[in-house]
Amino acid sequence: MIRIFLALVTLAVMPTMSSVALASDALLSWKEGEAKHSIFHFVQRVTTAGSPDFVAKAERIAVFDNDGTLWSEQPAYFQLFFALDRVKALAFKHPEWKEKQPFKAALEGDLKTVFSGGEHALLELVMASHAGNTTEEFEQIVTDWIGTAKHPRFNRPYTECVFQPMLELLSFLRENDFKTWIVSGGGIEFMRPWVARVYGVPPEQVIGSSIKTKFEIRDGKPVLVRLPEIDFIDDKAGKPVGINKFIGRRPVAAFGNSDGDLQMLQWTAAGPGARLCLYVHHTDAEREWAYDRKSPVGRLDKGLDEARARGWIVVDIKRDWKQVFP
Amino acid sequence: MIRIFLALVTLAVMPTMSSVALASDALLSWKEGEAKHSIFHFVQRVTTAGSPDFVAKAERIAVFDNDGTLWSEQPAYFQLFFALDRVKALAFKHPEWKEKQPFKAALEGDLKTVFSGGEHALLELVMASHAGNTTEEFEQIVTDWIGTAKHPRFNRPYTECVFQPMLELLSFLRENDFKTWIVSGGGIEFMRPWVARVYGVPPEQVIGSSIKTKFEIRDGKPVLVRLPEIDFIDDKAGKPVGINKFIGRRPVAAFGNSDGDLQMLQWTAAGPGARLCLYVHHTDAEREWAYDRKSPVGRLDKGLDEARARGWIVVDIKRDWKQVFP
Repeated sequence: MIRIFLALVTLAVMPTMSSVALASDALLSWKEGEAKHSIFHFVQRVTTAGSPDFVAKAERIAVFDNDGTLWSEQPAYFQLFFALDRVKALAFKHPEWKEKQPFKAALEGDLKTVFSGGEHALLELVMASHAGNTTEEFEQIVTDWIGTAKHPRFNRPYTECVFQPMLELLSFLRENDFKTWIVSGGGIEFMRPWVARVYGVPPEQVIGSSIKTKFEIRDGKPVLVRLPEIDFIDDKAGKPVGINKFIGRRPVAAFGNSDGDLQMLQWTAAGPGARLCLYVHHTDAEREWAYDRKSPVGRLDKGLDEARARGWIVVDIKRDWKQVFP
Repeated sequence: MIRIFLALVTLAVMPTMSSVALASDALLSWKEGEAKHSIFHFVQRVTTAGSPDFVAKAERIAVFDNDGTLWSEQPAYFQLFFALDRVKALAFKHPEWKEKQPFKAALEGDLKTVFSGGEHALLELVMASHAGNTTEEFEQIVTDWIGTAKHPRFNRPYTECVFQPMLELLSFLRENDFKTWIVSGGGIEFMRPWVARVYGVPPEQVIGSSIKTKFEIRDGKPVLVRLPEIDFIDDKAGKPVGINKFIGRRPVAAFGNSDGDLQMLQWTAAGPGARLCLYVHHTDAEREWAYDRKSPVGRLDKGLDEARARGWIVVDIKRDWKQVFP
């Protein structure tokens, strides 16, 4: 049905021919189907001058969750592996960690015990591993780690556990003059050192969770010191707050994969005119993972119901993606 | 001396000729002199391919204070006039304000008494006038005010009390592929509705002070409600913190006019390679205002000493600008 409609639109509005052609070349790892066609159709509507849904270039804001949307998030958020590696690297300064949870479990690689400590345990690990240095030092630490650490299942760099179809979608939107932003529950300074290279998203278009920093003059040189204190949690209802704080305009397109993205999609959908809201549904245990309503990581439950009720696109990885990783 | 040096550079490096030509057309309201030439020289160095000071386009970040740097800030920050007008507009809902400071003074237009209450009084006025509505409602209120309110001395819209030479500087930098950002102690949501039109700076390139917002569903529609609670003060040591938070890269050029901008200039200057740090010094009581070390608004004291000690550009409005306002 959508296919037929698209064909009619194409015949009726000649100037759109070129963008459809471009589009057909663009999302090569996407199988033909409703998801791919809905993306094309949306981009066509908002970029065609004279269309009632035309959106000026400056207003073409697209927001992407990161964990589970642009790269995998199993068996645990990749930033947690970073935190555990940092705890190991810093353990020589903290002999007491050998006997103290959650550090003991972290040092032993015992994820189950780490998780059993709940949010408080994770927060302790994050503060111990992410704070106490300057922003420049931390950037170097992340750069070194992301360049060498490997994913436990795929045994390749985490930056190669990104989704090829989503890389193509980022490029396709940018070719159509969208500004692409990352809006992630992950740490803003954990993402910034590598997202330009991997996703083509500059650091100033990254929104994430953060700890506070403090300006100081050290040996005559100004530095920003990372404090063990939460500044902002960019998750759930925090995502529209972060979008408003950093971007100051409502996105016209939003991409997520979990209930943590639901408010971002609601906020995007509530604007006037054409909107694109899309959930990535992890359905492919063979090539990636299959999880949704009951997963402790990246749970997609309420979001799945709301997506179906409201007609948002739900990408079925197994069915809709020819290829998962680059 | 700098003029002679520039001439030699121009003769020696032929590819720079074209950018100098462009530059000569660009800053028309700037008198010939050290300030103008230093700006040209800096832009030439960082944009000339092969120059040891060449800066990649993605790294060309320029940050501008707003109050006193892009527009006037006397006899008081323009946002305070907005707050006073809001208090007057809301007074019918608050009969108690007639007898309660600082509201009583605000309603009577008695700036002196308002100021005598110090920071606490100003904060009370800001919270009463800036919070309690949704982000969309507030945007409309600001848009209406900025479109109708007039400056008490010049009797024209506040957006016409902007500095023509700085508008030219913003454009000149953008023509040379700089991304121009505003980094102001003023309210981020007070600036965003009009800075694109007035300065050519999109809302997502504005950093400012903010109050917290909260995501809510009202009558089935998601809204962001503005809370009477400080989120971030983007002034003094807060400016490098805000720059790191929002941009995630260090600027190569920074423009301010007061001690509130000093840490932003220090942070910018401390990066490697060529840097441009510039203070606007208000020296022209006839065309604008003359104030510096003792002004309660926009005090420039430590910053002036540091600028002179470190060779930063100090623009003398009376001497350096042919024209102040558009």
